This record gives sequence, C-alpha cells and structure tokens, in this order.
Amino acid sequence: MARFFVDELPHEGTEYTLDGENAAHAKVLRLRPGEEVTLCDGRGTDCPCTVVEGLTLRVGASLPCPAEPSAQVTLYLAFPKADKAEHVIQKATELGAAALVFFPSRYCVSRPDEKSLPKKLERWQKIARSAAEQSRRGVIPPVRAVDSYAQALAEAALADKPVLFYENEAHFGLRDLFALDGQSMAASTLALMTGAEGGFSEEEIVQARAAGLSICTLGPRILRCETAPLAGLTAVMYALGEL
Amino acid sequence: MARFFVDELPHEGTEYTLDGENAAHAKVLRLRPGEEVTLCDGRGTDCPCTVVEGLTLRVGASLPCPAEPSAQVTLYLAFPKADKAEHVIQKATELGAAALVFFPSRYCVSRPDEKSLPKKLERWQKIARSAAEQSRRGVIPPVRAVDSYAQALAEAALADKPVLFYENEAHFGLRDLFALDGQSMAASTLALMTGAEGGFSEEEIVQARAAGLSICTLGPRILRCETAPLAGLTAVMYALGEL
Repeated sequence: MARFFVDELPHEGTEYTLDGENAAHAKVLRLRPGEEVTLCDGRGTDCPCTVVEGLTLRVGASLPCPAEPSAQVTLYLAFPKADKAEHVIQKATELGAAALVFFPSRYCVSRPDEKSLPKKLERWQKIARSAAEQSRRGVIPPVRAVDSYAQALAEAALADKPVLFYENEAHFGLRDLFALDGQSMAASTLALMTGAEGGFSEEEIVQARAAGLSICTLGPRILRCETAPLAGLTAVMYALGEL
Repeated sequence: MARFFVDELPHEGTEYTLDGENAAHAKVLRLRPGEEVTLCDGRGTDCPCTVVEGLTLRVGASLPCPAEPSAQVTLYLAFPKADKAEHVIQKATELGAAALVFFPSRYCVSRPDEKSLPKKLERWQKIARSAAEQSRRGVIPPVRAVDSYAQALAEAALADKPVLFYENEAHFGLRDLFALDGQSMAASTLALMTGAEGGFSEEEIVQARAAGLSICTLGPRILRCETAPLAGLTAVMYALGEL
C-alpha cells in the first residue's frame, strides 16, 4: 500500500489532493480509483484514504501507525565516509531508529566542513523520508549533526540507557545490559553510539564512561563502521520484542 | 592484527613465507619484524605468527578461532540485483554467517544466466574472503547457488531450525521460535531464507511450510531484500548469545 508523508493530516470525511513530491510519486505509482493509500504525519499517526480519482483521496479516520516501535532508539554515529552515512540512514530507518545524530571524533577520516554539512543533512533527511515511506514507518527519523564528541556524549547520556559499542571491549555485551534491567526497557529511550572507520581512542572511551555510557561489545567479530550501528540496533529491537 | 587465509597451516616452530595475494596484501600493510599476525585455514583454526623479516613468519601453536559462532547459520537468498548480493555477502560474513546459498524464485527480477553465474560466484567468494579477513573470522563462508527454489527448500529443511522470513506473516516471530525451543539451539544449525525484491508468492510459502520451514515475521516494518537477511541473522546471533 502506497504511503505519503504530509505536514498536517486532513480531517476524516473530507477530500484531500496530493501535491508536490507526493503528486509526482503518485503519478509514478499510477493510483487507481478505489485503491487504498495511507497518509502519515511523520510523527506516528496514520490516516487511511481511498483514491477517488487522479490525485484526489477520500480521507478516513486516523490511527497510530502500527509499525512504530515503542522504544525510542537514537543512533549516534561518528561521521563515516559519505556513502556509508547514506547506507546507515536508509537501513536504520527501515529497522526502526527514532533519530540519527552524527558527530566528529578523533579518528574520523571524513568530517564534512561547515559549508557542505547543511546540504549533506538535507540530502540525508530525504533518504530517511524515502526509507520511512518504503518501510511503512510512521515517523521520519530526524537526521542531525552535533559539533563535538563531548556534545554527542552529553546528549546520549540523557537516554534511559546510553550505550557505546567498542571493539576492544571483550566481555560486557547487550545481553548483560538487558539482564541487568530486565524487561523494563520496552517503552524506554536508548542511545547507541558507534565509531568511524578508525574507531574510538582510549581517551574517548574514558570520556564516555565518565558521561555514564555503558561500553558494550558486539561480539568477537570486528564489524565495519557501517555494520556496527545496524547490528546494535537490530539486536536491541529484538531484545525489546520489537522484531 | 593482520590476518591471512592459507590452504594448509604450517607446523609450529617452522618458518613460513607469505605468497600470492597474501604477499601483495602484506606489502600494502608494511609488516615490521616482531609484529604479530594470524594465519588461518578458513576452516576455523587460527595460527598466531611473528614477522621475522619481510614476508617471512615464525609459526606459533594453532588454536580454534575465537570469533567463530558455535551455531551454524546458513542464509538462503533469492537472487537480488548484483550490487545487493555483494552487500549481503560482505555484511553476512562480518555478522557470522556459516554459508550463503542463492536460489531463483518466482519474483526474482535479476537471475544470472548460466554463463555469467560461475564468474559471479567467483567474485562473490572473493568478497566473502576479504570480509572474513577484515572481521577476523576463522571460516570463509562458502557462497553457492542452487538451480531451483525446490532445491533450496530441500537443503534448508535439513537444518535443525529452518526459517523463512515473510512480510505477510503478521504474528509468528523469531522470539516465538526460540521460546518454543528454549536455549537448546546454541550449537545447532539454522537456515534463514529471504526473498528477492519482489518477495515470495503465496504458492512458494505453501511449499516452504510443506517442506517443514517455520514462516516468521521480522516485525511490522517492511525491510528491503538486502536488509532482511542481515536483520534476521543479527537477531538470531543475539538470541543464541553469539553477539
């Protein structure tokens, strides 16, 4: 079923006409009269509609999007090379991430300069929107950047459960984390932080611990910087019963 | 630590000289005398070595590779478009897959012809080898193809726990599967089957059930054909305590 994000959901029983990018998308899909489509406000509410004709829809009663996890998992990612960032944004959106926040770190090989960053973020946000449509998400995860590692740590530390995945942590894993907290995590907020191609420095790990983050392994296999956040997100979603 | 796959591990206490692709790789890495590297037979056994000089190593005592999961998880994948296949092979190797088997299915949009398949498989096997080196695997997952969906089902059904992920299965998930079988799965064999861009036909699902596969959901979000096998593999590795 086709899915369109709109700024404001129309009222039940009215007619609504798709416009802008949604209209262009609908033309590609060749919607037929009687077909069911979904409007979504991108903040968790869906509105089932029926195509009247062309781009005009009859609006149904809105309801909470059934594909949204109750846990809010935000990914904090050290800037990777650009194509990897796009990959992670698309996949993390499919897998249910609530938001993505990029930050610079000591061993980043590819930190966007101040000039290029706004354009990159605009492009990245479009990728999240498109992935949210395709995966039937009810929320378009916001994609942001912060200026420093310290700022990323401070933000992440506000989550109910902030975690940093570190390849040199040999023992403490996500299962230990969830064993400590039992099943009380289902509706909580989590922050999952991962490094860039070059990993984290030891000093950065000390800072993360001091900020209150749990340092976790993702197992004995060394994951690439674009694989680790998605593996962590998937494992957390499974552990929370969202998968 | 650098890692090199060799056909046969040399005896402890002897000297061994890297050759072929390993020599080329070692030159790029600029190994220094005294540096520790690992030789691996690609069948689960590691052999720590010390660089004597140039490409010559002093061979230590071999031991089981610590990065190999005890569960053997084989992915069965309907042929996706070529770049997606390469992506899945690389990531699944990192995440601990035991083997990858491609098969044709009704809605495949991109089935390689008989002429191009051997070259593709050769290329795909190289991707698995390279990913195994980087992620410190002890096994290079074999990458194969079978001629038919029926053959893929028959092979998958031989696993202790064969699973097919289907987007139209709304309720039964991996957690239900593992709840049924408790923790007895740790050293078992699993087969995880996923569809191509076009998904599975209803008839194919009937065939899979008849062959003994469990039909599972991966949650309410619709995953792309290259995301689903990796999400399933990650969740299984987490559930089995391998992550």
